[in-house]
Amino acid sequence: MSGARRPGRNFLFVPGPTNVPARILRAMHVPMEDHRSSDFPKLTLPLYEDMKKVFQTKDGQVVIFPSSGTGAWEASLTNTRSPGDKLLAPRFGQFSHLWIDLARRHGLEVIVQEEEWGTGASPERIEEALRADKTHEIKGVMVVHNETATGVTSDIAAVRRAIDAAGHPALLYVDGVSSIASIDFRFDEWGVDLAITGSQKGMMLPAGLGIVCVSQKALAQMADAKCTKAYFDFADHFRTNPGGYFPYTPSLPLLYGLRESLAILFEEGLENVFARHRHLANGTRAAVEAWGLTLCAKEPKWYSDTVSAIMVPEGFNGADVIDRAYRRYDLALGAGLSQMAGKLFRIGHLGDLNELMLLGALAGAEMSMRDVGIEVVPGSGVAAAQEHFREGVGEQRLAAE
Amino acid sequence: MSGARRPGRNFLFVPGPTNVPARILRAMHVPMEDHRSSDFPKLTLPLYEDMKKVFQTKDGQVVIFPSSGTGAWEASLTNTRSPGDKLLAPRFGQFSHLWIDLARRHGLEVIVQEEEWGTGASPERIEEALRADKTHEIKGVMVVHNETATGVTSDIAAVRRAIDAAGHPALLYVDGVSSIASIDFRFDEWGVDLAITGSQKGMMLPAGLGIVCVSQKALAQMADAKCTKAYFDFADHFRTNPGGYFPYTPSLPLLYGLRESLAILFEEGLENVFARHRHLANGTRAAVEAWGLTLCAKEPKWYSDTVSAIMVPEGFNGADVIDRAYRRYDLALGAGLSQMAGKLFRIGHLGDLNELMLLGALAGAEMSMRDVGIEVVPGSGVAAAQEHFREGVGEQRLAAE
Amino acid sequence: MSGARRPGRNFLFVPGPTNVPARILRAMHVPMEDHRSSDFPKLTLPLYEDMKKVFQTKDGQVVIFPSSGTGAWEASLTNTRSPGDKLLAPRFGQFSHLWIDLARRHGLEVIVQEEEWGTGASPERIEEALRADKTHEIKGVMVVHNETATGVTSDIAAVRRAIDAAGHPALLYVDGVSSIASIDFRFDEWGVDLAITGSQKGMMLPAGLGIVCVSQKALAQMADAKCTKAYFDFADHFRTNPGGYFPYTPSLPLLYGLRESLAILFEEGLENVFARHRHLANGTRAAVEAWGLTLCAKEPKWYSDTVSAIMVPEGFNGADVIDRAYRRYDLALGAGLSQMAGKLFRIGHLGDLNELMLLGALAGAEMSMRDVGIEVVPGSGVAAAQEHFREGVGEQRLAAE
Amino acid sequence: MSGARRPGRNFLFVPGPTNVPARILRAMHVPMEDHRSSDFPKLTLPLYEDMKKVFQTKDGQVVIFPSSGTGAWEASLTNTRSPGDKLLAPRFGQFSHLWIDLARRHGLEVIVQEEEWGTGASPERIEEALRADKTHEIKGVMVVHNETATGVTSDIAAVRRAIDAAGHPALLYVDGVSSIASIDFRFDEWGVDLAITGSQKGMMLPAGLGIVCVSQKALAQMADAKCTKAYFDFADHFRTNPGGYFPYTPSLPLLYGLRESLAILFEEGLENVFARHRHLANGTRAAVEAWGLTLCAKEPKWYSDTVSAIMVPEGFNGADVIDRAYRRYDLALGAGLSQMAGKLFRIGHLGDLNELMLLGALAGAEMSMRDVGIEVVPGSGVAAAQEHFREGVGEQRLAAE
Repeated sequence: MSGARRPGRNFLFVPGPTNVPARILRAMHVPMEDHRSSDFPKLTLPLYEDMKKVFQTKDGQVVIFPSSGTGAWEASLTNTRSPGDKLLAPRFGQFSHLWIDLARRHGLEVIVQEEEWGTGASPERIEEALRADKTHEIKGVMVVHNETATGVTSDIAAVRRAIDAAGHPALLYVDGVSSIASIDFRFDEWGVDLAITGSQKGMMLPAGLGIVCVSQKALAQMADAKCTKAYFDFADHFRTNPGGYFPYTPSLPLLYGLRESLAILFEEGLENVFARHRHLANGTRAAVEAWGLTLCAKEPKWYSDTVSAIMVPEGFNGADVIDRAYRRYDLALGAGLSQMAGKLFRIGHLGDLNELMLLGALAGAEMSMRDVGIEVVPGSGVAAAQEHFREGVGEQRLAAE
Repeated sequence: MSGARRPGRNFLFVPGPTNVPARILRAMHVPMEDHRSSDFPKLTLPLYEDMKKVFQTKDGQVVIFPSSGTGAWEASLTNTRSPGDKLLAPRFGQFSHLWIDLARRHGLEVIVQEEEWGTGASPERIEEALRADKTHEIKGVMVVHNETATGVTSDIAAVRRAIDAAGHPALLYVDGVSSIASIDFRFDEWGVDLAITGSQKGMMLPAGLGIVCVSQKALAQMADAKCTKAYFDFADHFRTNPGGYFPYTPSLPLLYGLRESLAILFEEGLENVFARHRHLANGTRAAVEAWGLTLCAKEPKWYSDTVSAIMVPEGFNGADVIDRAYRRYDLALGAGLSQMAGKLFRIGHLGDLNELMLLGALAGAEMSMRDVGIEVVPGSGVAAAQEHFREGVGEQRLAAE
Repeated sequence: MSGARRPGRNFLFVPGPTNVPARILRAMHVPMEDHRSSDFPKLTLPLYEDMKKVFQTKDGQVVIFPSSGTGAWEASLTNTRSPGDKLLAPRFGQFSHLWIDLARRHGLEVIVQEEEWGTGASPERIEEALRADKTHEIKGVMVVHNETATGVTSDIAAVRRAIDAAGHPALLYVDGVSSIASIDFRFDEWGVDLAITGSQKGMMLPAGLGIVCVSQKALAQMADAKCTKAYFDFADHFRTNPGGYFPYTPSLPLLYGLRESLAILFEEGLENVFARHRHLANGTRAAVEAWGLTLCAKEPKWYSDTVSAIMVPEGFNGADVIDRAYRRYDLALGAGLSQMAGKLFRIGHLGDLNELMLLGALAGAEMSMRDVGIEVVPGSGVAAAQEHFREGVGEQRLAAE
Repeated sequence: MSGARRPGRNFLFVPGPTNVPARILRAMHVPMEDHRSSDFPKLTLPLYEDMKKVFQTKDGQVVIFPSSGTGAWEASLTNTRSPGDKLLAPRFGQFSHLWIDLARRHGLEVIVQEEEWGTGASPERIEEALRADKTHEIKGVMVVHNETATGVTSDIAAVRRAIDAAGHPALLYVDGVSSIASIDFRFDEWGVDLAITGSQKGMMLPAGLGIVCVSQKALAQMADAKCTKAYFDFADHFRTNPGGYFPYTPSLPLLYGLRESLAILFEEGLENVFARHRHLANGTRAAVEAWGLTLCAKEPKWYSDTVSAIMVPEGFNGADVIDRAYRRYDLALGAGLSQMAGKLFRIGHLGDLNELMLLGALAGAEMSMRDVGIEVVPGSGVAAAQEHFREGVGEQRLAAE
């Protein structure tokens, strides 16, 4: 887009923003209207109800901010915590790092549990730390469900069990930006207290909506939370949202887009959406194996269904693969960040995606690797993914027609 | 949009969001792309340069947030101030009130100068207060350039002269949300230190971008500013923007829309844009006079060229006019807020607007008033506006063709 | 669009193309797809069924051509007639003239009944001519339902009664391009044999679809029709349409647009659509009367509900009004054609239109007339239309909410 | 589109309609306007000039019809011929067959030269036939440049040489629907007299424009052409086009789309467009070879750069591959037509296409073939295409950046 004429479609395989389906782009193409009209709540009120289905919650309360996901991080913390409050947070990638950094900027004291990049949150260590916190000074546990930088998914249910096993009242804060609406996420069942997501990943929208889901337990702590907030104050939303309104002018195209996104998700069925992401991820992993390469994620239990971080062999720079892919084949791959810079490239396989799109991207990754000298067998990754894809969810969809 | 089938176009005459031109809606209809690609800066870097032209600044620095204008309010204060800092702020409408409220939530101490609603900032009182502040405890003066709630424009140049006359170093914070890109606004010439705007008014975009322009003097105070901030931290932008990037995923449609908005503004010419708003406002005021009604703005010097707040006669409720206009004629008017609730209705005449659109709205306001029993002469306001419109800027455009 | 920057919306009041609602423009914004896929009939087959509802027919058969309405004229004749066949056709405007001309180009012999422009088809003269045609050499009667050039609607039901009264087997060919989906049109009840329409008027679409409805009686004459045809041959459509396909690549955006157009028409209800057009036309006529001007249509019985042709006073040129309106006020009016050139200007009031849009146009016409020296009282037409509009269909819609 | 929710993009590899670039879809999303306004020619006049560049002509005259390409076939013949005129036409596929059929429906006498499907026009046989036509009764030679049904490109320059060698005055009629703007086509240099194309192939637009280019020699024969025509009469266009207007309402979105299509083609450069199509076609052919399959086209000299028709092995039905690809993998392939029904499937590789898109399609074809039992080696075709693609035009584009 922002460059010169390049024929055909860009293959967008960064882990967000993801491809916005034509239906959603169309739905966003709306004239402006009065966001304080008597008709407006017909649009807005169902959005809150439907977002709850995406979070898989009955009792949670949803807040939608005109912001990126980073703003939702901020909102989740400032509305429930006071400066000096202690939080426990495992760190195992760039996004868990950044969230911790944001918490600290708000005066929160974060006890960091360093985990090797390529692994995720350790329920055992969390339980241990909470058990040791006899006086319950730790007010919350912050976990990134899906670490986008390394392609690692942590087990949130296990984290909840760890908190409960420790008999600890800490709130459970979960970043679900690159998991929610792509990977199974159960707000109620897992006892999540604050879940954060953004519009530009599994929701298949442009960036611009930061979305938080808040448990009743967390709501009860709002009154005591002394962190400074204004733009991100839940209270202004809770005062206006029930009528269908917002404390400041909302971005209408994104709300109409969200309406269509939710319709699309429910048409496919959340279960099917999760299964499709698993299916596409398995195909990607088959390709990686066929290439003779490894994932950044250390073990299958960490494998993410939305993004695969692929280690390049010693002596090669992942950035060269990415640059080649982008400039020569119109394939956008994700880079290694921070301590992983140069060591890997990432394929985002989330959102509005199907098998042939992914096969095109795998073919492009193959060519790019060969171009920079990494000796993978031409067609090998594609073939492995193809053979995986020929089974699976597509088959079931077809059967259901 | 959000309601059932209503034939034809809605006449959107709230003072924001404004009509988004078809060209901009088209420009926003883009596939997603990698916001970290080597091509992306080709889009983003010129946006900053061109926004400076809109602010009429050479030395100011522009920051663009994925937020509403409220977020830009927050950013302007938290990046330059510390809790406990004193600010001086005249209050004469709902938006000056809300900005003061936001400042206080961030721990700032605001000295409020109450002005009658329908008037604006008093340079004399500001000078007086600053002169009295021998120890320079007042760190800034916050002025809403165009108070959207009452249709009042304050004289920012005079405020600057007042500050200078008092020999006071306070920064000048100006809310230009409903003036910038519609009413002449001169960042450098007027010595503004922090100017705030949003995308959904004169910029003719949906809401979703909060934009701040910062003077060199203000930038120099950033290091000492201790207000809590993270999402709205200028520093993260200053680290990434020069390369053409953002600290978090930007909303691509809005950036592409901003590109087109700027192109449209420069095609028409900022001077012509201002003249057109003046012309349309004058027509509106001619209609109000013909109706035998008065504006909320007390004197011509306060008259806003972007919004007219029209007092309804005693015994009538402005909300009834608005409800009638919306439900019966598809005309969206602005309501009276706070102490003006029920006493007036507002016509926003800003953004992508021409004479016939406004005449349709005036005709609709006329009918709505008659429907609720306000005895205005049918066609009287329209006729007065027509006779005004037959002279003026359109004529000049035609001559220039 | 095709010119330079002009702020705000163009007021499009030519009698076609009409304003395309945002919903339809959105619906047309589709990726291409295989028009021979197994899914495609899910889109196409209901279009035929729903178009029959618009024609108000049970037994008629609909054919949709990728062409303008002119192509549909051609199809209606060449599929049912042979060179040398006699047709009877009243002529009272530019479009009845052009259709006759087209028939003659195909070797048909057209007996023209000249009627004064400003009147329409004379059932009496038609009956007389048919009675005189003892040997039934006249094979069809061609009538333009709504003559767009003069704003005259003929009484098709009366023409049918005339044909029947004469006991004559001639087919009834009706051009409904500027009436169908705006003015009541009853294919079955009126015994129409071939009805022609296009996409760019009451259907609220861009031009590009020529649509014909064919009676069973007309279908029975196809086999003997020797006029040359290939692109417009019904037979190719009748072979492919039942499966949901076309003899050549259809224009997908227009088919998706037609889908949405039909949805919109049925949401509003055809009866309500007709009533709205009557309501808007009455308002326009009230304005004309208030201006002290007259319509081209000689008597109320000829008044068209989709277009008003307004005579300018002696000594003035309608083209000057139109030029002024377009270049100065962004108002597109229709011109006088052929013998009416310069004598009138036309306001198309059909399609996706409401009261305020029309009031804006009336205000613009008023100003344009005054600008060229026609002395109408400012606001007079607007006021008359307003007072008409305050009663009527809007009221009913509101009551129904 | 027309079916239920299917995640991700459909891979559209029928040889038309082709993918419409997002830029063109955006450009088509326009409000309606008066097609008789004084501004309109600013849009239309350059379209004619720029289409001439696409035809590679200086002296040719372009006519644009609101129709499919079939309509342009009809226009080319009816405007230059009289019933009973003799035409010479090689037939070697479904589209050459249909054009001959259309000519006959207009009363033209077509002398058919049957060529084996998989081959194309024989300049030798054409020369022979023309030499034998001493009295010059043959008025034209009709050749399909690129036979879409079999993936065969004929040598038009050689046909011209054959006509000249025979010293015969017959006009040269060329169907360039699936070649123009994709494969080199030189109207002037090759002495083409009537060239026909449509909007939905190399022009990357939806169907709906039939475009003809006419030589001065052909124009000179118009006066004597007695074939019936009205909608497709060049004369009506020649009367109105020079001013920038049309004889009937044009489809505005398609004209705006054409404007953008031409801009895109010239940005890439026609030479580069042709080279890209050759490059993609070569990759496809490498895949076919790697699969151990053969093309319908008998020899390399017939190979089409816009569509490859791939023979399925004995015992298999091409329709099964196509059905599987469409329903299971969202891949739209072209079917075998008429005598080739079931014997092949077709991959259209034209329009707005790049390497990864094609690799995705090849991967999908591979899986579909395997699914129906055709034993191709997984990844084999993809690998062969990849290795081809790693060289070539992309490399050059990159170098030029």
